[in-house]
Amino acid sequence: MAIRVFITGGTFDKTYDEISGQLRFEDTRIHEMLRLGRCRLDLAVRTLMMVDSLDMTDADRRLVLENCRSAAEERILVTHGTDTMTETARVLGEARLPKTVVLTGAMVPYAFGSSDGLFNLGSALSFVQALPHGVYVAMNGRCFPWDDVVKNRALGVFENRR
Amino acid sequence: MAIRVFITGGTFDKTYDEISGQLRFEDTRIHEMLRLGRCRLDLAVRTLMMVDSLDMTDADRRLVLENCRSAAEERILVTHGTDTMTETARVLGEARLPKTVVLTGAMVPYAFGSSDGLFNLGSALSFVQALPHGVYVAMNGRCFPWDDVVKNRALGVFENRR
Amino acid sequence: MAIRVFITGGTFDKTYDEISGQLRFEDTRIHEMLRLGRCRLDLAVRTLMMVDSLDMTDADRRLVLENCRSAAEERILVTHGTDTMTETARVLGEARLPKTVVLTGAMVPYAFGSSDGLFNLGSALSFVQALPHGVYVAMNGRCFPWDDVVKNRALGVFENRR
Amino acid sequence: MAIRVFITGGTFDKTYDEISGQLRFEDTRIHEMLRLGRCRLDLAVRTLMMVDSLDMTDADRRLVLENCRSAAEERILVTHGTDTMTETARVLGEARLPKTVVLTGAMVPYAFGSSDGLFNLGSALSFVQALPHGVYVAMNGRCFPWDDVVKNRALGVFENRR
Repeated sequence: MAIRVFITGGTFDKTYDEISGQLRFEDTRIHEMLRLGRCRLDLAVRTLMMVDSLDMTDADRRLVLENCRSAAEERILVTHGTDTMTETARVLGEARLPKTVVLTGAMVPYAFGSSDGLFNLGSALSFVQALPHGVYVAMNGRCFPWDDVVKNRALGVFENRR
Repeated sequence: MAIRVFITGGTFDKTYDEISGQLRFEDTRIHEMLRLGRCRLDLAVRTLMMVDSLDMTDADRRLVLENCRSAAEERILVTHGTDTMTETARVLGEARLPKTVVLTGAMVPYAFGSSDGLFNLGSALSFVQALPHGVYVAMNGRCFPWDDVVKNRALGVFENRR
Repeated sequence: MAIRVFITGGTFDKTYDEISGQLRFEDTRIHEMLRLGRCRLDLAVRTLMMVDSLDMTDADRRLVLENCRSAAEERILVTHGTDTMTETARVLGEARLPKTVVLTGAMVPYAFGSSDGLFNLGSALSFVQALPHGVYVAMNGRCFPWDDVVKNRALGVFENRR
Repeated sequence: MAIRVFITGGTFDKTYDEISGQLRFEDTRIHEMLRLGRCRLDLAVRTLMMVDSLDMTDADRRLVLENCRSAAEERILVTHGTDTMTETARVLGEARLPKTVVLTGAMVPYAFGSSDGLFNLGSALSFVQALPHGVYVAMNGRCFPWDDVVKNRALGVFENRR
């Protein structure tokens, strides 16, 4: 089963730049995370962009959609900032692609010691293999359909809409 | 969705004892792993035993089976040493429980820096939510039915039988 | 030999706030670092402030000086941001205290995976025990007298003046 | 100031072999530790052997002594297992070399998450620069003259003789 992975950035991939003292993006860390997990899946990884999701534009989200649409694979993982992950999920969900698309990210950069990134990556890669066609957000060990998820910004967790 | 977690030990939970210079078991590390993953699932965790799976007896495996059978939950995760994980999977699979049971473990102790444990935990918790009733081994990002899995001891990875 | 430790903050003690996505200060991490190092020194730790050293004022530096002057101990470690560490070293050096004072910090927060903080802490605690009275900056494994040190901002390392 | 570093192994450099489930030696980890510490010292590193110090023979200790004697450098760091570190320190101390030699090690392998190795390395490299000629053991943030140190095996720490 071939799985496509699209990287868009987000906290998942931020690193600390010691010269400037700021957080920034370099190359994706996903390859070392997959090595750490000893992942033996057939994955095709592409970096579409490396942005904080607060900086994502409609054009960026359409780029993600078009890449999902044109990918040869039927199962797609998208790594994404958590702040607007549900918006991109909505854009993808409304397109009704005949695919299983799972979005995930991290609350703490993988580059830091206490990250949820590795756990979320394992979780999302499993959901993308097991779930029927549709678009989902995988965070906090759970998966949410694209039309029933919201980020609780006070707690920093994802929940069903209510 | 309530999920039961049964801990049996394995490399997943080994730690380094600096006084003796040996690897040994203390309390399970699963709670700190779930905190790290910011896991928001409804989990009931029980430690059945803390053994290297090479030391597991038939009685131990029957204990795991009986606990799976009598658990109130329909979805069960079992953490287990990788060396005889497929044997316990077989014992559970042949019992034809009306449940989804997923076994996982780690090639490197979570207590060490380069562990696959957190990735496998996220992976297995997702499979146990998504898969139909049956018994599965979740390792290396994949899931295997209990009757089609073997550990490749030379490479330290799990594969389909052939 | 009793050693006084004064905490002023700096990158050494920054942490990542996942709700805001920003770096910030919480309690000092020095106690867990000393536990990790299995440090058996007789240390009295006090947090004077938790600031980025770019935000330190003359009043702040005088506070550090007065605390060094009035401390009962003859040997004092000061953790400090690297950006203006040499300025505080100068204020302390010009006071000609009959003490050994060593300033150290980190280029990467201890809270992140790739920090020099633990190495620098071990280094500075050793220099403060072994050096004669005076004020020193301990970074990059070396120690520099307060009047012969400068931070090379392009490379993020400390060097002798030239 | 050039410093010679002789590696002999010990817990400091042990790693976990996931295929066998045993601890073993591979290459020394000291280079990545020095990178992590952003160490800017002029160091010449040589691996003399990679052994658990319980397996060190008199011939091994004489090898360490001869290398210390013939090294061009006046300041030498020796990484060593903690179990017989004081014995090697005695062999070196009785030779009355016109040099400063510091031995250090770790109670937990650097390869594991909770190691004192990086702290001890920073500590020992500082002591070797600052101390007068003689042979010392640097552990737990302290330094001990070779003729006044013993390992407290119950607690896993180093102390003065009494």
